[in-house]
Amino acid sequence: MIPAVSWQKNYLQLIDQTRLPEETLFLRIETIGEVFEAIRQLKVRGAPAIGITAGYGLFLGMREVQSGSGKDFFERLDQQIAYLASARPTAVNLFWAMESLRRRLGAMADAPWERLLDTLLELAIELHQDDRQRCEDIADHGQAVVPEQARILTICNTGALATGGIGTALGVIFRAFQRGRLREVYASETRPVLQGARLTVWELVTAGVPVQLISDNMAAALMQQKKTDLVIAGADRIAADGAAANKIGTYSLAVLAQYHQVPFYIAAPLSTFDLQISRGHHIPIEMRPADEIRRVFDQCLITVPDVPCWNPAFDVTPPELISGIITEKGIIRPPYPENIQQIFQQ
Amino acid sequence: MIPAVSWQKNYLQLIDQTRLPEETLFLRIETIGEVFEAIRQLKVRGAPAIGITAGYGLFLGMREVQSGSGKDFFERLDQQIAYLASARPTAVNLFWAMESLRRRLGAMADAPWERLLDTLLELAIELHQDDRQRCEDIADHGQAVVPEQARILTICNTGALATGGIGTALGVIFRAFQRGRLREVYASETRPVLQGARLTVWELVTAGVPVQLISDNMAAALMQQKKTDLVIAGADRIAADGAAANKIGTYSLAVLAQYHQVPFYIAAPLSTFDLQISRGHHIPIEMRPADEIRRVFDQCLITVPDVPCWNPAFDVTPPELISGIITEKGIIRPPYPENIQQIFQQ
Repeated sequence: MIPAVSWQKNYLQLIDQTRLPEETLFLRIETIGEVFEAIRQLKVRGAPAIGITAGYGLFLGMREVQSGSGKDFFERLDQQIAYLASARPTAVNLFWAMESLRRRLGAMADAPWERLLDTLLELAIELHQDDRQRCEDIADHGQAVVPEQARILTICNTGALATGGIGTALGVIFRAFQRGRLREVYASETRPVLQGARLTVWELVTAGVPVQLISDNMAAALMQQKKTDLVIAGADRIAADGAAANKIGTYSLAVLAQYHQVPFYIAAPLSTFDLQISRGHHIPIEMRPADEIRRVFDQCLITVPDVPCWNPAFDVTPPELISGIITEKGIIRPPYPENIQQIFQQ
Repeated sequence: MIPAVSWQKNYLQLIDQTRLPEETLFLRIETIGEVFEAIRQLKVRGAPAIGITAGYGLFLGMREVQSGSGKDFFERLDQQIAYLASARPTAVNLFWAMESLRRRLGAMADAPWERLLDTLLELAIELHQDDRQRCEDIADHGQAVVPEQARILTICNTGALATGGIGTALGVIFRAFQRGRLREVYASETRPVLQGARLTVWELVTAGVPVQLISDNMAAALMQQKKTDLVIAGADRIAADGAAANKIGTYSLAVLAQYHQVPFYIAAPLSTFDLQISRGHHIPIEMRPADEIRRVFDQCLITVPDVPCWNPAFDVTPPELISGIITEKGIIRPPYPENIQQIFQQ
């Protein structure tokens, strides 16, 4: 398992996920500007992974700054948090990770610059390590919803490439495979950026997990033919009412799953919840450039060059379509508003 | 409007639809073997268009044969019908067109070879011309379901490239545009072969019709955001119960439309009905090669090279999800079994 994100003593190493599976290209990232671009251009993606990357990004950013007072440190840090937060607006883990570092550093406001900088790196590394454990726990809890000989449909990529560990939705699937409960995975290719075809298939094939690739528009026929026992997807932000923003196409799968009476689960760490947002439709949805649809991999032009496209990166699945949300603290079931509050109070 | 199929005195001209929109390449087709390959490789596609092409194909095939008795003629003709019918198993118009020619020729079984051959060509041309009128009538009847300022979602390509005229579902859309009732078309790209992105967008942009392209997995979010008033799709075969086989992804749109209370219509000529097939799930569904999913345009590899894929070319939408079927004789409404019988008895 090649980690998507790794800290290499004094620089950040990322796999360039836009080049996979054709090429395993490692990027040496030394500035916050490079971190911003890597997130923006989807070289690193997946809600937990971009949170982890942003943590290291803040350290790289602060390392570039001429040292000064503790007050200066926090002023500059807040600027850099705002800068990285603007790279992608939907995944709340990005904000959560940076806010979490900011809050813990805030407790040592009087410390000298060098000490703050060292601690920032330590906290970024700790955040990364914690995510590994969260993935393990999600994978374990998720087994409760996986039937024997399961055929599981998933979308986008939620594996090692998207997290600091085994993955979220894909972590549940890997664990099911390890325990001999998995018959087959159907990976939805996930247009326009094809994270399913490129990344999920690559991770599964590499791990020896049986997988079949489908186009996104085949999921309905797959369910109609009773070839799917379960759908599991990740999330980029979950509102207080249980509505989940995730890769475009997830909502489609949720509607189709309900129609075909197939259970539909979200797997995500608690850092994905944004309790400030009461209802799903208030989650900001990133609109991406038309050329992502018009071209495959910036090269193959598939349509008339200047045709307008509607390209939301995410959609929002309302709580009534979600059978349960698999977290590191267990599975949250409806009614979500109450049960989400409860898990955060534990 | 460039016709997809045209008879050029002594050869058949096709636009190579696999090259559109990048290149408008005309193919000069002189043998039945070339017709078979053009159909098989989707150089010509769309249920009505392949029926028309097969008509000319039979003439080309019979023209190659050393002349003999009238009995020999029909023996060879039946072989060639079976050969072309095997090119694509789902679109019933292919069989219907050839059977229709066969039946009408059968009435002159005693005629000499040359006369049969001449008549075969005349009938193929007539079949082609009739399709033009059928498209016009479908387009007119369809206006009854198009609201003012309509935003219409469609899939695959059902326009001039798919028929002998203005189109089926896209014909209804063109007519709505001509009458000033159309606000916008959303074209679903239609993976894996991308007929929506390549062909429908090209036809609409060429005709000045406002269109936005979406990935197939965005249709649900589009409906959730109330950006769609109507879905219209074509069909490759309709069973006696009203179930419609059409391009993969159509069934998905039908389920999503019902969930969002958006009307879902099929537009197709009566030649698309196969009353021999009582129920939709008996319609044979063509499975196509995995590389159609693994590669875009035979070139851009989007996944691990040898990953298995599930690639049905069509799906079947059950009658309970279809608001109506727009034909050249009017709109068929539920209950379908009775109303389909009735329209055929008119």
